[in-house]
Amino acid sequence: MSVIIGQKEYFKGIEKIKFEGADSDNPLAFRYYDENRIVAGKTMKEHLRFAIAYWHSFCGDGSDPFGPGTHHYPWDVASDPRQRAADKADAAFEFITKMGAPFYCFHDVDAIDQSTDPKEFTSRVEFISDIFAKKQAESGVQLLWGTANLFSNERYMNGASTNPNFEVVAHAGAQLKSAIDATIKLGGRGYVFWGGREGYMSLLNTDMKREREHFARMLHTCVEYARRNGFTGKFFIEPKPCEPTKHQYDYDSATVIGFLREFDLLSEFGLNLEVNHATLAGHTFAHECQVASDNGMLASLDANRGDYQNGWDTDQFPTDIYEWAEAMAIVLRQGGLAGGGINFDAKRRRNSTDAADLFYAHVGGMDTIARALLIADKILTHGEMDRLKAARYASFDSGKGAEFEQGKLKLEDLYQIATEIGEPALISGKQEYLENLLGRFV
Amino acid sequence: MSVIIGQKEYFKGIEKIKFEGADSDNPLAFRYYDENRIVAGKTMKEHLRFAIAYWHSFCGDGSDPFGPGTHHYPWDVASDPRQRAADKADAAFEFITKMGAPFYCFHDVDAIDQSTDPKEFTSRVEFISDIFAKKQAESGVQLLWGTANLFSNERYMNGASTNPNFEVVAHAGAQLKSAIDATIKLGGRGYVFWGGREGYMSLLNTDMKREREHFARMLHTCVEYARRNGFTGKFFIEPKPCEPTKHQYDYDSATVIGFLREFDLLSEFGLNLEVNHATLAGHTFAHECQVASDNGMLASLDANRGDYQNGWDTDQFPTDIYEWAEAMAIVLRQGGLAGGGINFDAKRRRNSTDAADLFYAHVGGMDTIARALLIADKILTHGEMDRLKAARYASFDSGKGAEFEQGKLKLEDLYQIATEIGEPALISGKQEYLENLLGRFV
Amino acid sequence: MSVIIGQKEYFKGIEKIKFEGADSDNPLAFRYYDENRIVAGKTMKEHLRFAIAYWHSFCGDGSDPFGPGTHHYPWDVASDPRQRAADKADAAFEFITKMGAPFYCFHDVDAIDQSTDPKEFTSRVEFISDIFAKKQAESGVQLLWGTANLFSNERYMNGASTNPNFEVVAHAGAQLKSAIDATIKLGGRGYVFWGGREGYMSLLNTDMKREREHFARMLHTCVEYARRNGFTGKFFIEPKPCEPTKHQYDYDSATVIGFLREFDLLSEFGLNLEVNHATLAGHTFAHECQVASDNGMLASLDANRGDYQNGWDTDQFPTDIYEWAEAMAIVLRQGGLAGGGINFDAKRRRNSTDAADLFYAHVGGMDTIARALLIADKILTHGEMDRLKAARYASFDSGKGAEFEQGKLKLEDLYQIATEIGEPALISGKQEYLENLLGRFV
Amino acid sequence: MSVIIGQKEYFKGIEKIKFEGADSDNPLAFRYYDENRIVAGKTMKEHLRFAIAYWHSFCGDGSDPFGPGTHHYPWDVASDPRQRAADKADAAFEFITKMGAPFYCFHDVDAIDQSTDPKEFTSRVEFISDIFAKKQAESGVQLLWGTANLFSNERYMNGASTNPNFEVVAHAGAQLKSAIDATIKLGGRGYVFWGGREGYMSLLNTDMKREREHFARMLHTCVEYARRNGFTGKFFIEPKPCEPTKHQYDYDSATVIGFLREFDLLSEFGLNLEVNHATLAGHTFAHECQVASDNGMLASLDANRGDYQNGWDTDQFPTDIYEWAEAMAIVLRQGGLAGGGINFDAKRRRNSTDAADLFYAHVGGMDTIARALLIADKILTHGEMDRLKAARYASFDSGKGAEFEQGKLKLEDLYQIATEIGEPALISGKQEYLENLLGRFV
Repeated sequence: MSVIIGQKEYFKGIEKIKFEGADSDNPLAFRYYDENRIVAGKTMKEHLRFAIAYWHSFCGDGSDPFGPGTHHYPWDVASDPRQRAADKADAAFEFITKMGAPFYCFHDVDAIDQSTDPKEFTSRVEFISDIFAKKQAESGVQLLWGTANLFSNERYMNGASTNPNFEVVAHAGAQLKSAIDATIKLGGRGYVFWGGREGYMSLLNTDMKREREHFARMLHTCVEYARRNGFTGKFFIEPKPCEPTKHQYDYDSATVIGFLREFDLLSEFGLNLEVNHATLAGHTFAHECQVASDNGMLASLDANRGDYQNGWDTDQFPTDIYEWAEAMAIVLRQGGLAGGGINFDAKRRRNSTDAADLFYAHVGGMDTIARALLIADKILTHGEMDRLKAARYASFDSGKGAEFEQGKLKLEDLYQIATEIGEPALISGKQEYLENLLGRFV
Repeated sequence: MSVIIGQKEYFKGIEKIKFEGADSDNPLAFRYYDENRIVAGKTMKEHLRFAIAYWHSFCGDGSDPFGPGTHHYPWDVASDPRQRAADKADAAFEFITKMGAPFYCFHDVDAIDQSTDPKEFTSRVEFISDIFAKKQAESGVQLLWGTANLFSNERYMNGASTNPNFEVVAHAGAQLKSAIDATIKLGGRGYVFWGGREGYMSLLNTDMKREREHFARMLHTCVEYARRNGFTGKFFIEPKPCEPTKHQYDYDSATVIGFLREFDLLSEFGLNLEVNHATLAGHTFAHECQVASDNGMLASLDANRGDYQNGWDTDQFPTDIYEWAEAMAIVLRQGGLAGGGINFDAKRRRNSTDAADLFYAHVGGMDTIARALLIADKILTHGEMDRLKAARYASFDSGKGAEFEQGKLKLEDLYQIATEIGEPALISGKQEYLENLLGRFV
Repeated sequence: MSVIIGQKEYFKGIEKIKFEGADSDNPLAFRYYDENRIVAGKTMKEHLRFAIAYWHSFCGDGSDPFGPGTHHYPWDVASDPRQRAADKADAAFEFITKMGAPFYCFHDVDAIDQSTDPKEFTSRVEFISDIFAKKQAESGVQLLWGTANLFSNERYMNGASTNPNFEVVAHAGAQLKSAIDATIKLGGRGYVFWGGREGYMSLLNTDMKREREHFARMLHTCVEYARRNGFTGKFFIEPKPCEPTKHQYDYDSATVIGFLREFDLLSEFGLNLEVNHATLAGHTFAHECQVASDNGMLASLDANRGDYQNGWDTDQFPTDIYEWAEAMAIVLRQGGLAGGGINFDAKRRRNSTDAADLFYAHVGGMDTIARALLIADKILTHGEMDRLKAARYASFDSGKGAEFEQGKLKLEDLYQIATEIGEPALISGKQEYLENLLGRFV
Repeated sequence: MSVIIGQKEYFKGIEKIKFEGADSDNPLAFRYYDENRIVAGKTMKEHLRFAIAYWHSFCGDGSDPFGPGTHHYPWDVASDPRQRAADKADAAFEFITKMGAPFYCFHDVDAIDQSTDPKEFTSRVEFISDIFAKKQAESGVQLLWGTANLFSNERYMNGASTNPNFEVVAHAGAQLKSAIDATIKLGGRGYVFWGGREGYMSLLNTDMKREREHFARMLHTCVEYARRNGFTGKFFIEPKPCEPTKHQYDYDSATVIGFLREFDLLSEFGLNLEVNHATLAGHTFAHECQVASDNGMLASLDANRGDYQNGWDTDQFPTDIYEWAEAMAIVLRQGGLAGGGINFDAKRRRNSTDAADLFYAHVGGMDTIARALLIADKILTHGEMDRLKAARYASFDSGKGAEFEQGKLKLEDLYQIATEIGEPALISGKQEYLENLLGRFV
């Protein structure tokens, strides 16, 4: 059977989203995202490197633990898995192009159905990645990163790379090989590891030490393979504290960085940080970004938001300009995302069942982040916030403070200094003043 | 003025707490803690190394953010700070002795009032540590660990070792010197760092990278000083995610271990883990213990419990035998606490205003943990739980699994193996069975 | 096509679970649940009225938001929905009988597949309820409560009784009618309303006031219908704060009782309280039970537990004897559950894939609660805990305190009394002592 | 000794804060709050009715559970309690006047030191309220509401109106009488009950039913007294779920409304809702406001914000325009706050030690809410959001839907209707579209 591609328009009646400015009343126009606008020396498009997530936007059906899907896709009807995958690719590239996003991201199993036979699955992935390659060439859309879904298949119920059964680990390796091959073929800027089942359901049956070692071993194995086969992109780890497992090993930025350092993987990896994962871990998004940036590991972002009243990954589209303004300021300070982009790992609500809702969702998300970029640029251009922060630490820039930083003072020296200077003055942290300053630019 | 010590009995009418067995109806007797009972080759006393926390038990007055203290101590009435400190020491050693606890722990400012003049404060600490030395010799009670309180004084409102003002850092150093000196003098088994203000209230005014570097620098400075002056004990870091700051750098076990590794401090340090800090960080106590143990860092424990409905450090006395049975099993598996003990970092409720309440609280806490030790011993002696866990990983003990662990397999090898073995069988994690097994020993 | 029932044994090799006592090493025996043992004047069986939940135990496939099911049921293979339903009923009654549970509970759609045509669905429900009736008669197993699933079908994505579209409300009504009819036919002791979609995803599109009024209207409509058609049981509402919606109207005990009072529904209803729903709402299970009991509304319980580190409904099997001992003491104090029983609204973990795991899970759960009943009975028989509590309030039993309770004192009287009595003594709340007392019986 | 008032300027160098518009670079000017600007038919001043909280701004010293105060007030130095109270009043009215806030709020013990003798304390409250009356007359500042602090004094450690000891209840009554008298004298618009200790620390020692009844009894007693003595304002209850107690009876809006209805107090009371209390209870602020408004109980607001990463009452100054825009839209829809105003129940951070920080904090807070009012007005003027919401429920405005609302349909009717109409169409909830719409006005 021959597969037909590119014959159908799935989002009829919706044109390419354009920039119309803040006063536009058109819900299908950008009010802030102007891809060609220059901000801090680069276009918005270059700064933000927006990507569309294949899984949520073209596969996610709105199901939740209490009910099956509500989104019925016209591209999801063919009986042949290859034809169905091709139809989905048509819809995906139509949507991505209409949104004006320069990138997309996908898991292997988003692109085409799994198979229990690794050979057949590899063949399918090769088939669909050939179509993706063609579509990329036609549209100019590029692959931000690829990844393997090592969490949905029942064989991974006890973990993938961290499964207690080596046979399952071998299957994880097989799937990783195929996904890395596809990522290389498609010129992916990065390759992401999200360890959805790499953790535990119960400590009672888990050897955490051995599982973490297996995980590190698999990462080394993948890096060696990918480099040998010509992958020049970055590897990303995406932290998440829990869900679907009780506890995931890639808990948060600090934990992942500690893990990568322990197993000598730091130099090959960066972090792909997600808002909702940050808040589930008990951190602000800005905190996670700052920790990563301080370690030279802030590489890519997953755009969404959580719900502070709900304790699971709601993956809503971003709407909070405060959350993003703080993050974008950190990104600008480090000179941009190191190798990655901003991927909409966000899904429409289960009851947002109109085709247009997918557009509204992305328009709102892209505008939120574009606006945050403008705010962040204003904060840095204005400069007072960063000047105030730097001034707080001035006592370490010279004199005894600098000697302390350099390790030249012993504890007796500190005692001596304290005795001589007497009680230090209380110096206000000026938090409310700085919050007002932030508010001024929002 | 001369100071009078040892002249008064503060807890009249309460005798030394004795072991009477599980059927005892005496609320001032142990039902499980029998210090001489042999468990897994050591006495209970040797296993548990119980310590009384000076701050909660002899200084804590029951105040909270919505009201001042309700506990009025007869040892806290003298006007002279040295006499008041001596009276408190009388009460403390009377209580510790009556409880039969072999150890105590204290912050410098628990023992005696602070002074803005480092010289005067050092002199006071020397005064009271002389008294402590005398009391230790008389009673046989020993110092588990000492520490400096670098969080209460207003000068530390922006941090101590991580303060943006070097002058404050110098004062922190002066206080650390004095506390380390006292710990060495008193033969303390360990020295603890709890970074109550080492974190941030707002990222807007904080250079987290520089602050963490200053913190590491101070730890190196303290280690160098202490070793040079004959300290042979362990240094402990006590993780806590937040409170009083919004975010504390010593967030949890994984974060602290990552920090110690980054700054080459691993070999000198162990962790002092607290139940309530674990749960505030979003972890079970067992999780924190296991992470530490897997890294050879499980050194000492702070016994208390939090309240899952309240999001602050409630520091209640331990009552949950499940929580402690899992922890004690981890401790037994690693052959005991590495250098530390179990310190009751717990406080009576604000409305527990009877002197006897302090005894009830500790009796309940010590019995809970003693019972947990007995349960943990039964679990390990029975052995099935650990056997089942080990058996899950048997595929890595030989053959291809072992080769994977040794790094001998490439990604192509895993692909090849997966192709050959076909779909692995689903192997149950047996969580409910293991929970029943745990329940059987509780 | 004729349907065949009762021809197959699905849990071969597993015999009826028997009581063997606390020392039993048999994982398929009860160690605490002895159905004939007399406790506080009734058999354990009469006290606990255990029920098996049809949905989790015979329908739940282990799927979660990150992966499809891992439990493959031999009773779920026939292509005809009626035959498949009959096979499932065979399995269910075999399991319930082997567990020795006197009751079961079900949603309409657990029993048999839904249909978009209300008539066809009603016909299916009649078909399967006839089979249930036959099975009940043969086995002696009875129906604790029935209910309609008004949350899974996509038509309920915006709510069922609270849907903004009246057409959907009508469908909810149709389904309620059929489920109530089945419950009456099967002699169900109760009928439960759990409002899984009765809440909101966003306040921006929600008229909460009107939706709550519609919900009350539907409850009145159901009560009228059920009473007119001979239902003599209790109606139960099951509170839950969120999930699948952001906010559910039946948030917690206090909220539901307030709602029932507002809409004049109190007399017909009781509460069916679930452990995991309590903790998701920020309460202890004991709190929810006490609130309900104080209002005469503690009617039935859903047995499970949550995970304090995970913010969703994990529905794990109960293991915590503290949690249940406190609850059972409240139940005993009010003379037993008012009309309901204890239903295992709990599911095996996704990776508990052995058929025996379903038995282990229920054995552990039933034993936990049976043990809690024994503890609660000891607490009440001993009596000190309740005596101490009552004594705290003695000042209101006579004199001015009693006058206050009776509303005989004006504010000036209180002022006068306060002036006369002077500062009251501080009276300890004895919390640690009471916690020890509880610990003594655990 | 005679008391001297009005002789000193405490905030020298800071002038009355003025409106300068959004482009102002002056940190001591309003950018949004223009008291005379007309919005939706009233001035901003009339809409917002800002009040300054006496306790945080003039008494709060920056202490927290881990350290004493850092804020040292020049008005807090006199040794005589009456003089100290008078000095504080000078500072307070100077600040309130400079901020341009039309109202203030206070607890009795904020105004002047407590005394164990009710007569002496009443005399003190009379003394300071005479001064307040004079200051109000001079400045035009008015009292939004008064209240009694029934949580700080150690006598209330087991509750005030809900204390198990009637003697303490009598003292609570005495203090309430005096605070109500002062509120009447000062023309307070309202009187607030916040039950800081009205709850429990442990259910083991608590008769929740009796305590709640005592609480209701005290409220009736106060209402009777106040009305008899000429109080014409509103009574407010301020919900909070916990802290300082484990569980507070006034948990959230729904719980308090249920309580007031149960005890026949609804007509005399409204709710005073606080942002941080809402989020501690697991709700959005908008949710709490909507629940109150739907019940005609949205009367007054406490302005602050919590910290989603910290589980206690951080009482930070409001900065989030989303949070407030949603709340102000609810307020505008109900035609304004029913009897109350917006009180800054917020405190500077412990490390915000400059006198100017108090001004920055309030400027930021008032601007945030003023801006939110402007946004809310735009949302309502634009109208689409409310039109879309109303349109969702149109099927209930006539026909069968209206009959359902009126209770004219039986369950059989719903069944019949469902059968006739067939499967309803899925109607999108348009959440992302509405979020974009909200974002457009922010």
